[in-house]
Amino acid sequence: MLVQAIKSKIVSHISYIIASQNEAAVIDPRRDCRVYLETAAEWDARIKYVFETHRNEDYVVGSQELAQLTQAVVFHGQGLPWAYGKTINDNQEVSLGLLKIRAISTPGHSPESTSYAVIDTEAEDRVVMVFTGDTLFVGDVGRTDFLGPKMTPLMAAKMYDSIMTRLMPLGEDVIVCPAHGEGSVCGGKIRNREISTLGIEKTTNPMLKLSKEKFIEQKTLERHHTPPYFKQMEKYNLNGPPILGDFPIHHALKPSEFAEIAEKACIIDTRSPAAFGSAHIKGSYSLPQKRLSNIGWVVDYEQSILLVAENLEALHYAVRSLFRLGYDKIEGYLTGGIEAWYKAGFPISEVCQVSVQKLKKMIESQEGIFILDVRRENEWIEGRIEDSKRIYLGLLEKKTGELPRDVPIVVVCKTGNRSSFGTSILLRAGFEQVYNCLGGIEAWTKSGFPLEK
Amino acid sequence: MLVQAIKSKIVSHISYIIASQNEAAVIDPRRDCRVYLETAAEWDARIKYVFETHRNEDYVVGSQELAQLTQAVVFHGQGLPWAYGKTINDNQEVSLGLLKIRAISTPGHSPESTSYAVIDTEAEDRVVMVFTGDTLFVGDVGRTDFLGPKMTPLMAAKMYDSIMTRLMPLGEDVIVCPAHGEGSVCGGKIRNREISTLGIEKTTNPMLKLSKEKFIEQKTLERHHTPPYFKQMEKYNLNGPPILGDFPIHHALKPSEFAEIAEKACIIDTRSPAAFGSAHIKGSYSLPQKRLSNIGWVVDYEQSILLVAENLEALHYAVRSLFRLGYDKIEGYLTGGIEAWYKAGFPISEVCQVSVQKLKKMIESQEGIFILDVRRENEWIEGRIEDSKRIYLGLLEKKTGELPRDVPIVVVCKTGNRSSFGTSILLRAGFEQVYNCLGGIEAWTKSGFPLEK
Amino acid sequence: MLVQAIKSKIVSHISYIIASQNEAAVIDPRRDCRVYLETAAEWDARIKYVFETHRNEDYVVGSQELAQLTQAVVFHGQGLPWAYGKTINDNQEVSLGLLKIRAISTPGHSPESTSYAVIDTEAEDRVVMVFTGDTLFVGDVGRTDFLGPKMTPLMAAKMYDSIMTRLMPLGEDVIVCPAHGEGSVCGGKIRNREISTLGIEKTTNPMLKLSKEKFIEQKTLERHHTPPYFKQMEKYNLNGPPILGDFPIHHALKPSEFAEIAEKACIIDTRSPAAFGSAHIKGSYSLPQKRLSNIGWVVDYEQSILLVAENLEALHYAVRSLFRLGYDKIEGYLTGGIEAWYKAGFPISEVCQVSVQKLKKMIESQEGIFILDVRRENEWIEGRIEDSKRIYLGLLEKKTGELPRDVPIVVVCKTGNRSSFGTSILLRAGFEQVYNCLGGIEAWTKSGFPLEK
Amino acid sequence: MLVQAIKSKIVSHISYIIASQNEAAVIDPRRDCRVYLETAAEWDARIKYVFETHRNEDYVVGSQELAQLTQAVVFHGQGLPWAYGKTINDNQEVSLGLLKIRAISTPGHSPESTSYAVIDTEAEDRVVMVFTGDTLFVGDVGRTDFLGPKMTPLMAAKMYDSIMTRLMPLGEDVIVCPAHGEGSVCGGKIRNREISTLGIEKTTNPMLKLSKEKFIEQKTLERHHTPPYFKQMEKYNLNGPPILGDFPIHHALKPSEFAEIAEKACIIDTRSPAAFGSAHIKGSYSLPQKRLSNIGWVVDYEQSILLVAENLEALHYAVRSLFRLGYDKIEGYLTGGIEAWYKAGFPISEVCQVSVQKLKKMIESQEGIFILDVRRENEWIEGRIEDSKRIYLGLLEKKTGELPRDVPIVVVCKTGNRSSFGTSILLRAGFEQVYNCLGGIEAWTKSGFPLEK
Repeated sequence: MLVQAIKSKIVSHISYIIASQNEAAVIDPRRDCRVYLETAAEWDARIKYVFETHRNEDYVVGSQELAQLTQAVVFHGQGLPWAYGKTINDNQEVSLGLLKIRAISTPGHSPESTSYAVIDTEAEDRVVMVFTGDTLFVGDVGRTDFLGPKMTPLMAAKMYDSIMTRLMPLGEDVIVCPAHGEGSVCGGKIRNREISTLGIEKTTNPMLKLSKEKFIEQKTLERHHTPPYFKQMEKYNLNGPPILGDFPIHHALKPSEFAEIAEKACIIDTRSPAAFGSAHIKGSYSLPQKRLSNIGWVVDYEQSILLVAENLEALHYAVRSLFRLGYDKIEGYLTGGIEAWYKAGFPISEVCQVSVQKLKKMIESQEGIFILDVRRENEWIEGRIEDSKRIYLGLLEKKTGELPRDVPIVVVCKTGNRSSFGTSILLRAGFEQVYNCLGGIEAWTKSGFPLEK
Repeated sequence: MLVQAIKSKIVSHISYIIASQNEAAVIDPRRDCRVYLETAAEWDARIKYVFETHRNEDYVVGSQELAQLTQAVVFHGQGLPWAYGKTINDNQEVSLGLLKIRAISTPGHSPESTSYAVIDTEAEDRVVMVFTGDTLFVGDVGRTDFLGPKMTPLMAAKMYDSIMTRLMPLGEDVIVCPAHGEGSVCGGKIRNREISTLGIEKTTNPMLKLSKEKFIEQKTLERHHTPPYFKQMEKYNLNGPPILGDFPIHHALKPSEFAEIAEKACIIDTRSPAAFGSAHIKGSYSLPQKRLSNIGWVVDYEQSILLVAENLEALHYAVRSLFRLGYDKIEGYLTGGIEAWYKAGFPISEVCQVSVQKLKKMIESQEGIFILDVRRENEWIEGRIEDSKRIYLGLLEKKTGELPRDVPIVVVCKTGNRSSFGTSILLRAGFEQVYNCLGGIEAWTKSGFPLEK
Repeated sequence: MLVQAIKSKIVSHISYIIASQNEAAVIDPRRDCRVYLETAAEWDARIKYVFETHRNEDYVVGSQELAQLTQAVVFHGQGLPWAYGKTINDNQEVSLGLLKIRAISTPGHSPESTSYAVIDTEAEDRVVMVFTGDTLFVGDVGRTDFLGPKMTPLMAAKMYDSIMTRLMPLGEDVIVCPAHGEGSVCGGKIRNREISTLGIEKTTNPMLKLSKEKFIEQKTLERHHTPPYFKQMEKYNLNGPPILGDFPIHHALKPSEFAEIAEKACIIDTRSPAAFGSAHIKGSYSLPQKRLSNIGWVVDYEQSILLVAENLEALHYAVRSLFRLGYDKIEGYLTGGIEAWYKAGFPISEVCQVSVQKLKKMIESQEGIFILDVRRENEWIEGRIEDSKRIYLGLLEKKTGELPRDVPIVVVCKTGNRSSFGTSILLRAGFEQVYNCLGGIEAWTKSGFPLEK
Repeated sequence: MLVQAIKSKIVSHISYIIASQNEAAVIDPRRDCRVYLETAAEWDARIKYVFETHRNEDYVVGSQELAQLTQAVVFHGQGLPWAYGKTINDNQEVSLGLLKIRAISTPGHSPESTSYAVIDTEAEDRVVMVFTGDTLFVGDVGRTDFLGPKMTPLMAAKMYDSIMTRLMPLGEDVIVCPAHGEGSVCGGKIRNREISTLGIEKTTNPMLKLSKEKFIEQKTLERHHTPPYFKQMEKYNLNGPPILGDFPIHHALKPSEFAEIAEKACIIDTRSPAAFGSAHIKGSYSLPQKRLSNIGWVVDYEQSILLVAENLEALHYAVRSLFRLGYDKIEGYLTGGIEAWYKAGFPISEVCQVSVQKLKKMIESQEGIFILDVRRENEWIEGRIEDSKRIYLGLLEKKTGELPRDVPIVVVCKTGNRSSFGTSILLRAGFEQVYNCLGGIEAWTKSGFPLEK
């Protein structure tokens, strides 16, 4: 038995390939799926099955893409009108070399959520590993709010039961392989350790120490955000996304070509906040690569996208990430980067970046500064700068009307990346006195400045 | 916490790199250690520690090489006069980011054998993972015969205690990361599943179901072979092997250059038995790449080596593998391969390859065929061709005097690779009627032919 | 101005990418065309044009594939009913950054053959380089026989004029970039130096030292072979081949799966003659990778193909090569190679490989040996083994009726690769006493054995 | 004959590997020389010779490094007390497969400068190619000022003669392979076309259209700068630089570790001027990667270096480049980049970046702005902003005393990169009102603003 985790940074997604006796299966493949073919080839194996733990909402699943290349059979859980693949029943088993893969219905995150237990026929038919999808993470459990607030308690109850009555009985010594790592929006507090066992989770996962009632209560209190592109993604993942075969080509555009296309396209600048601050193209969104998935709040699948990146490595990261998120209309990128742009005499815009030390001084010396915190509610509750106001980043573009136009606005988040996105939204909305706080609450805290709770 | 297994095919060795908060550690590094640096760089981490589970005897450890590059501190277990690094005491802990690494003395395989438990301070100081070296494998335990037959029962007893009283109490849900996978000579029946937990091993590892007495008895009955190069390797790994910085350069040699050097060097031909059969250079050892580690039976570290390989990929595999085994005197390789050799008019030798079907017919129709089985005793006991004789491959070169020179000898192993090595030893010893059986006992069995037990 | 040659071993094809000021053009792209995109990206350039020197007949042109990815404009020469792209007129110029690319009609190899001169506007509009396609090679000129023997003298005359009156006037100091290197079937004696100038060719190319009459005479005397797949290829390259986006996937097949598909497919074994000799699957074609393009003589585009290769590197070479030749129906490959096959108990066939030394002895001692030379006529004329008979390799499958079935047949070529293909054709036709001569005429000569002329 | 140019961006250096019949030679290898070994291996060749065209002063030559790995013989021109390798005489020839390499003494750039002509014995012993080192470039000739102003006219005369009487007689159709491309400091106006012929140079190289007198006059008028590290480099290249085997390891440093080492080290920040502008560590040199070689003006080989880069790709570029320049004391890099720094609460500095549009407005509206142009004299002569003052970048650190401290200083170069280095020098010297002009004279011109000549 060979197993390999394949990680995708953009949404902290983890997929897996597993093989035995020249037969391989992939769990929750991503869309750019050559990596599975290469791994299988190294292992002298053929991909025969794809198992989906649920209809993913945060990235485009690569099942169709992979099935077309390999003729693999795709399995999904019960309960959705899938337009492709086959439904696998609860407790149904599929043979894979000397292994058996057993579907275990684990609703909660979504009604069709399914975990897959790996049974080793050479080890007395023991379950050795379980792919838990978005049901059980290391240190957390999945979201239960996708069916809306009314359904959340019910879904939370289902999740509790799924974990306690379906997963835990598999045995404390069973290895847990979840579908997301730290940083995913599918679970708020996923640990950065990517591997665990049911026993370790049972004793150290804070959610699993709660009683069922407390568990439901806590899940009901959680406040998650759902970017609009999730809706599009769900359709993709139910019906099968467009099969592209590989990343879309992104053309190298000279400044003049870029400028022309820019009139009808959306410019995404993935450089650092610092670089964006000194020089960017007017109207660009600042989406530093770590926070690129926030594109889902402001751009839909139909819009043409233009990219500004720091160098080729950063460009490829952006293209790969957008592809995984379902954004296929990348028209091109600014060849030579922002330097080519200003060297050609095109005008640049800037937005002031302030350190926390400087922000502290501004607060102390200046009147009327508006501190806009764009973090999530739970982050905000844990500590914030005194007198700051909160509008969640994802909702900012729609709520700019709530902000004053006559005072300086300093945008703050945890580290300065999301707030840079925030400043770009304000600039696009015509705000003029906008500042980004580099380092954000993290630097503020490290510098020993006080937080309000 | 990030963890990655780094596998080396040649001796089925598994090393690990683990990181937390920009700090990394490597467990049992191999000698070509750039891979750890690259992984650490991707993880934004610096390698601070190297942990050795024991003085390895089957591959050159890369601790010194890695320490020189990174200034990492190397830790070994107690009980050997190490010429480098530091000794770590039983139960001593070393911090690594948000983790603690705890040394657990687990003698048995060797007196200084040490396991390393990973403690997650963010998960209530739970042990989540343990690096078990050659103490506990998936489905097997390590060898206990290295101190000689007299000491074997004592070492076996120590190993039993190490596993039962030191490892098992860590918890059934602790993930087990061993130093070898399937195919290693350090344990006879290691499973091909590379990951496990203490709980899974407890219930499914055949050795752990035995009573202490039976365990000792079984370990004492085991018959392992110890190639002579293990002695050299032990010195290397105690005193620190030569630091080369990277693979030694292997020169591209034209047939005439190759022929000249060949007079004072040892030719290793890593091509398939089939290719070796039709055409090889007289005097070469046939060491198909899967069985290349058998070089340890016939070549020592002082001898010059020349390589014949199928193509560049195979050549690199050979060079990498020999480097890991400590063979640094590779003079060069035959550029253009065997084809260049015979195109230049140089003479070639051949050795007849027979299928099991053909062998069956030979046995039925011909008299006086000598069937030489070169497998290990335990393989032989499980089944063999009627009337075959056994000399273990590693001892063959010294025992050719026991073989008849006037009848055809068909060499047999499990699949045809070790027997090809066997035929090359016989050819070098002047035998003339030599055959290699392609497919060996495995094909024989699959073809439905009878075995004697 | 940046320029890079991109070489494809399979048909010794050379394509080029050239760029100036962020604009790139590709000359005669191959079908797997990501390499051009990557090079262009490194150069901060966008591929705007594709220039075809002629309708290639020996490999699938990648113009359509590349145009679809880049929206580049494809240019061809005048005179064919192209189903895609644009026709470029004689002397028409296209701007590319600070360069101009000028089409120069150079019929001869084919009526529409066009060369492309590169004019450097920064160097006083000098022609600095010319892409000569299959018109002028280093040390040779292109074939002129594709329109049939009647047209050959006329085409040869056109080629002479094209070179002398269209290319040479560009200047002796102009760099020559041809479409093929040594080993191509498009020119018999192309030199292995891949770069030249018009001046060097003028004074050292044997063909250009001839008078026009002698030139035509020599071209008319040349005997080239045209594999049947050229016809299919010509249609492809006229109408646009299927656009696949990337290499077709080739499935890893276990021996049992392979055996099942093999009943309706054609098995191509790309291993060395030596390996094929000791063990192969009955009915396979032996097409060692250097000679894989000979597949065009025996397989058409509609047939399903199965591959047997030495290792992954060799497999990828085969898949890439077949893709470039237009063979898209690769069903899969034998995972684990021939060893997996015979280990599973499947029967193997063999064919005896003889060295030239052994062949010499056979000739001297044995009666009735039939020596079959499968080389081209021009090779044969230069020297052959006494009493050998010649049937050109490409025609062998259709002419097996001309061979005796009651005597041993030793197949001979230059080095042993094409003759291995020859032996596999004979085996398929039921011949039983077949031998392949390793090293062929080259080894024979190097060994000092006599040739007949 | 196979030939491949290997380019190194940092000093626009071009080395070459050439092979024939399994024998290879490298011309002017760079220090990180694995690339030559890999190319040779692909070509089935062994590197037998290294040819140096002269004692390079701008990058560390890899001859020793390569010779140690390959046992290749290193050849240099006559006239220097080389501490390694062999001297090759004028007109001496060395065989390489079917080629001959002939040394041609071409003094001028330096006394020992030697070109190497490639003679093709299969093409009637014609010279087909010549490696011209720093003697003849595409569109320019080498510097002749290294022996000091007194010797310049003499060296210029020698260079003229070398080109006219030694190179040109080889034939107009000989391909020219120079040691540098566009952007090198070894020749001011090298064209960006990297390949040429003697004929093309003869007719289009502006320097070669001059009479000998005018040639000498022009060379004598040229004003080049010689960074101090050239002196160190010359010693390296005469005596053999330290042999490292591979790039030095650069440690991943956490902000706190970085801060500690920074007290005794020199910080090189290779990020873009824009990013540097918004946030950098106090005291850093801004050396955007395109201009990294300017490090030679301010850092010597003994100083410890710390790196700040945008991402891993940029980091590797910096390490590779510094290694090629001889800077081996890289202590480490800031892991996580500048973001990790400010997130940890460490203070950041900034320097204002202005667009040319903004600079124009500043000039029009503000009094007392000091415009500091840091370009070379020849650039300055061709056009500058009115009232700007010039101090050459390389001399700036020593001449800060000449600048006013009470007015804003806007630093200007051609595009904004060298001026960013300039601003960092001023900041280190305690200047407070410092601005960098993004886009520089190039953007100024493109925007249609006036230049003074």
